[in-house]
Parts: sequence; C-alpha cells; structure tokens
Amino acid sequence: MIKAAILGYGTVGSGVYKVLTMNRESIAARVGEEIEVAHVLDLREFPGDPAEGVLTHDFNDILSDPEVAIVVETMGGLKPAYSFTKAALEAGKSVCTSNKELVAEYGSDLLKTAAEHGVNYLFEASCGGGIPVIHAINEALTADCIMSVSGIVNGTTNYILTQMGQAGQSFSEALADAQKLGYAELHPEADVEGYDAQRKIAILSTLAYGRFISYKDVPVKGITEVTKDDIDAAARIGGKIKLVAESVRIEGGVSASVAPAFVGPEKMLYNVDGVMNAVALEGNAVGDLLFYGSGAGSLPTASAVAGDVVSIARTPKGAAYPNNWGCEKAELVEPGEEVRPFFVRFAGSLDEAAAAFGEIAKSAEADGEADILTAPMAGKEADKKAAAAAGKVIKMYRA
Amino acid sequence: MIKAAILGYGTVGSGVYKVLTMNRESIAARVGEEIEVAHVLDLREFPGDPAEGVLTHDFNDILSDPEVAIVVETMGGLKPAYSFTKAALEAGKSVCTSNKELVAEYGSDLLKTAAEHGVNYLFEASCGGGIPVIHAINEALTADCIMSVSGIVNGTTNYILTQMGQAGQSFSEALADAQKLGYAELHPEADVEGYDAQRKIAILSTLAYGRFISYKDVPVKGITEVTKDDIDAAARIGGKIKLVAESVRIEGGVSASVAPAFVGPEKMLYNVDGVMNAVALEGNAVGDLLFYGSGAGSLPTASAVAGDVVSIARTPKGAAYPNNWGCEKAELVEPGEEVRPFFVRFAGSLDEAAAAFGEIAKSAEADGEADILTAPMAGKEADKKAAAAAGKVIKMYRA
Repeated sequence: MIKAAILGYGTVGSGVYKVLTMNRESIAARVGEEIEVAHVLDLREFPGDPAEGVLTHDFNDILSDPEVAIVVETMGGLKPAYSFTKAALEAGKSVCTSNKELVAEYGSDLLKTAAEHGVNYLFEASCGGGIPVIHAINEALTADCIMSVSGIVNGTTNYILTQMGQAGQSFSEALADAQKLGYAELHPEADVEGYDAQRKIAILSTLAYGRFISYKDVPVKGITEVTKDDIDAAARIGGKIKLVAESVRIEGGVSASVAPAFVGPEKMLYNVDGVMNAVALEGNAVGDLLFYGSGAGSLPTASAVAGDVVSIARTPKGAAYPNNWGCEKAELVEPGEEVRPFFVRFAGSLDEAAAAFGEIAKSAEADGEADILTAPMAGKEADKKAAAAAGKVIKMYRA
Repeated sequence: MIKAAILGYGTVGSGVYKVLTMNRESIAARVGEEIEVAHVLDLREFPGDPAEGVLTHDFNDILSDPEVAIVVETMGGLKPAYSFTKAALEAGKSVCTSNKELVAEYGSDLLKTAAEHGVNYLFEASCGGGIPVIHAINEALTADCIMSVSGIVNGTTNYILTQMGQAGQSFSEALADAQKLGYAELHPEADVEGYDAQRKIAILSTLAYGRFISYKDVPVKGITEVTKDDIDAAARIGGKIKLVAESVRIEGGVSASVAPAFVGPEKMLYNVDGVMNAVALEGNAVGDLLFYGSGAGSLPTASAVAGDVVSIARTPKGAAYPNNWGCEKAELVEPGEEVRPFFVRFAGSLDEAAAAFGEIAKSAEADGEADILTAPMAGKEADKKAAAAAGKVIKMYRA
C-alpha cells in the first residue's frame, strides 16, 4: 500500500481522487500494490463527498504523516503551493502537480530540492491537460534533438476562437459563453492575454531543449484584438485563426513566442477545435509529431496527474525519474528570423497587396479588402513590408 | 560507455546507427554516459560506410562479447530474428526491435525470456514508426483504463489511398508509384492485404488492455478492393477512405479488426495523408487522445528504436522497464456489436436508400447512385439491411 495526499480539492484535485478510486484495480496491477489517498487538504468542507473521511484543513497532518510518500498539488497559484511543495519535497515526499504557474516560476528550484532529497517532482498535467507530451519528451524522444515545439495549449482561447468562427459570435459574446460553461474564469486575463500559454511553452521548451527558458522572456500576444472580421477573412482563404504557442531552435539560441496565427486546412492544428489542445514536436530524427487531446477538464487533467502518481509509485526509492529540465539558461533570440507565410488583410486591391508583399500563395477579395497568404518570408521582412504599406494593412498574422 | 550491437543494416538498422551517431552528445547527456555501436551484423559488405569498421557476418561475435549490453534487432521477419533475439536475451543482453512480425508472433515468449534473465525487450518502433504510442500506453496513461485503440498504422496503404484520392490514380497505378518510391515492397501483400496493420493492432491492443490478442484472431480486410469510384463517392459527401485498424473494449471482451473505413472531415484522422500514421487512444479518464507522425521511413523508425536503446541504458541493471503486455488471452468478440454510421454506395435513388437504411446523416446523388452516411447502428444491423436491399448495395464501409 502506497499512501498519497491531495492538496486542493477543486476541479483537478477531486478528479485525481476520482481517477485513483475508479481505476484502483488496474492501477494496483500496474504498480504492484494499491495506492490509497490518505489525506485531502482543502479549507472547505465537503459533506457527503467520498473524500469527506480523509479531509483535513491542516497541511501539517500531511507533512507529519511519515506514511505519505506522494503529494498531489492541485491548488494552483504560487501561495501557498510553493511553500507546501517545498516542504513536502524536503520531508522526502515526491510531488506531482498540474500547477503550471508554479512550475514555470519555481521549476528549477523545486527540481533541485527534489533531487537533493532523493524524491521526484513531476508535472505532466501542467501542459496540455491530459496529453502526455511531457512523458514523450522525457522518456520517448530521448534519441532525438528536438528542433521545435508548437501548439494550441490553451483550451479557453481555442474555445472562444472556435465559437467566433463557427457560431458567428463576437469576442465578448464567445467569452461570456465560455464563462457560463466554466471554460473561462471570471477574470479571464491569464487565458485571453496568452499568459497561460506563455507559461506552458516556457515549460515545454525548457524540457525539449534541456535549457531553461523563463516565461517572462517569451513575447506574448493574446486574442483580445482578434475580431470576427479577421476570422471571416481567414475563412475566405480557407484558414482559421488559432492562438499558437511556439519555440524553435535557431542559430544562436531559441526563439519562443505566443501569438494568434493563421492556420491552413492542410495543417493538423486546423482541426483542433473547441477546448481541445494539440502539441507538435519536431525531432531531427523522428520529424514531425503531433499529440492531440483534452487540454483541460477535471478527468483529463487528473489522468495526467494520476499517471505521474503511478510513475512515482513505480520508481524505486531514491531513484530519479527521467526529466530533461535544464537549469542553465537558454539563449533567447528575438522572434523575427523564422521564415514562414503571413496572412494579411489589406485595404486595397489584390494587385496593390501583391505589390506590397510580393508573391501570393492564396487570396480572396471582399468588401474592398484583399485577404492574402504571402510566400514564406522572415518575420522582420514581413514587418518591414507592412510598415512600407503604411495604413493599408488592416491586420497581419503569422501563418 | 555502454556498448550496443545492431542486427541487420537495412533501412531501419542503418538509421539507428545514424541516429546514435549524429545525436551522440545529447544522448550521452540524457543517459549519463556514451552509447557506442560496437558491432553491426549483416551478410552484406558496406565498403566506405561509416559502420564498415564494426561490421561482422557472424552473430556469435556479438553474442560472445560480454561488453555488449544492448542488441538492436532490425532484421525483420521471424528467421533468424527469433533465435538471435532469444539467444541475446538468454545471454543477459536487452533487445530493442522494430520487428512487428516477431513481436506479434513471439512477444509473450520473448518478454518472458527477458524477465527470466533480468533484461528487457522493447519494441516502440514496431507500431506507428516514430510515433511514441507504446511509451504512452506503458508509461503515461497508466492511471487510465484504455477503452479503445484505433488508427492508421500502415504508411504504404495510406499513401496508395491518398494518391487515389488526390492524384486520381487507380489502385494499381498508385501501388506501382508506391513501389517506385520505395514505400511499397515488390511483394506488397503484407501491406495491401492489411496483414501489417493486423499485427500492429494486435500488439497495441495487448498493451492497451493488458491481455494477449493474437493477430491471427483479428479479422482483416485490405484495400485491394477499394476502387477509385468508392473514393470519389466518399468525397461527394466530404469523406475519405482510409485503412483503419481498431479495437474496443466491449461487454464480454475485446473486438478488434482491420478494414477500410469512411473518415469524415471532422475527424482528426481525416488529415492523416500520405505515409503519415496516427493512433487514437480513448481512456476512461483522459478521453480521446491522438498521436500523429511518420509511420515509416529510416530515421523516424530509427528514432523510436534508438529511444528504446536510451530507455534501456537508463534502466538500472536487473530492473524491469514498464510494460503492460498481458500474456493471458483476452476474450475476443466478433465485430458487429459496435454502433457507428456506415457509408453506403446505393444503386438507386436517395429515397430508396433511405427506405433501406433509415435515417441519413449525409448524402449525395450522382450517376444513378445514392451515396449516404447512415445514422449510427450496430454492424450486424447494417449487414442485415444491406442483405435485405439485395443487389442494391454497391459497396458499404464502416465510418
């Protein structure tokens, strides 16, 4: 019997309790012994809930229980998640979390603490919800050099953009809907301004390249300025607007960013709609891979956390679970060097647009504007062309 | 320094050599020491090849080298791959392979031998080329009960079907093209008759459900009877024909099969074209996941084999690498119970088609035939309706 404790009995925490309970047998078969949730920490009461009997309001009940080997941190935020995680690791307990804020901010520190105390700090659920992309980087693509990471890693914004495209809603209508359905929070800045995606791409890149990338250094643009007109214009040439987080190894370092982008129908990301997420990895041997699944939600995220619990339960005491996190800082290069097409809404004719941006891959004309997909060019060059076209560029998105 | 040997210096074997060489440094950083290929076994000579210096024609050079800890088997086929693998495991050497025939036929036997000798037998590359789906099942989705597995797992047939749809080729023209490009073999039966996909779905299902499924018990239908007319008819209602391997946990056991199927544009599999592969997994907690990547090719497949080499190199001596393979036989249920839509080419009007198959989800009429997508129904029921419509059903595919 292996004892675990859950910190925070919200959406994800209660999901972890549920997964560990409903799949108790198959998990025990994989681990070789049963995993029991011995404590659940939350300030609230949960009368009648299955976890009621193990509920505590005092973290010390968990910290001081020598039988608890694994702590699940699903509180979110930095306080008190950081001090609780640190204390658990220092007490010789491994920790699994879904908390991307904490991993992005204190990942290096907490991994170091874990190593010093012969335990592990795992965070599969911090990126892409239930999609096992961190396992893939740490355990599967170990013979590859990963060259780029990109994806749709925020379900809230993807839901809003999908609704704007499919249901013809404005940004604020779609946001209100998302809030009603529980996909967006009352204060949605972390999602709609791209800050959540920024943390996730920083975490994924740190693992992929084995060098530390601070989320604070990743340029971010959210979706608040994406209009229904932009989405309609993209649709006229067969595309969609998606919030894409990406990083790429280039000469001199790594370029990382989060921004809304034009996605054409030939791309796998094109069909990633609603609250679904997808992460693409490019390895120098394996080529292009894509992982698709639920990026949020109680059980999908809990599946990833509970999978980490199993990973720890199967790791011999004192052994390190594979982790490619790098603490040494990566050289970050300003985005602008990567060569790719751009989607431009141009106030003018197709001929004028072609004169401004050169070769055109796809185009449509409507309501006095030309909607074009340019030939591939460096971001810097596209910016220069847009500046030269003065007030003619209504909007420009990378593609 | 960890010493490895490669059996078979063909497409995959030479790829493994290349990956281990070109990514030597990053691999050493992950493992903690260098991995060196000490021997390459092949009956041929490779003058001027980088591996020339370590080439041998005698398997005993490898077997009797006590320093070789890891053997890579990329010979394919059963003979002599089986006896070489068995001997290597018995000599205390772990084995990684891309050989799905061998794993499907002797997986239980070889895993037992590996366990008895405190070594490991890994086969990520046997299914889906470079896609790390076996890692996902064995190491990530460990807290889920996997409910179904489905996918496009054969690149050759997917290339042929894609060409028939996009370039308007007939089956034999597309096959000839695939042979010219090296995507299909001179004797293409294993691919086009679905036998390769049959082995892969048997392996993936055995891992997903933890119970043994023999490929011999999986009903298989290849693509030799798929016509250009079928593909055009599917396109008229927005779909494609793909060779889909699948298995699903149902009451009483597991139902598994390989058959060409209609894939609609709302499905992630719809965009899996050419030689690309994709595997979808459904977990009872995580929901739907999809893994997409190169299903074949030298470096992608080698990436998976070399990843297994790293996994073994990082596993402490005598420890078992996680593996959910079940040796106890699964109860296999005849397909026909799963409820889903069917795509029917009906020789008659839309009204007649509706009279025969009931509610219709999508339809088109052309050249005296009605092309319909039915409402979901059990396979058995669809078969009954098709039989009752006598000679009116030109073709029927599951969807």
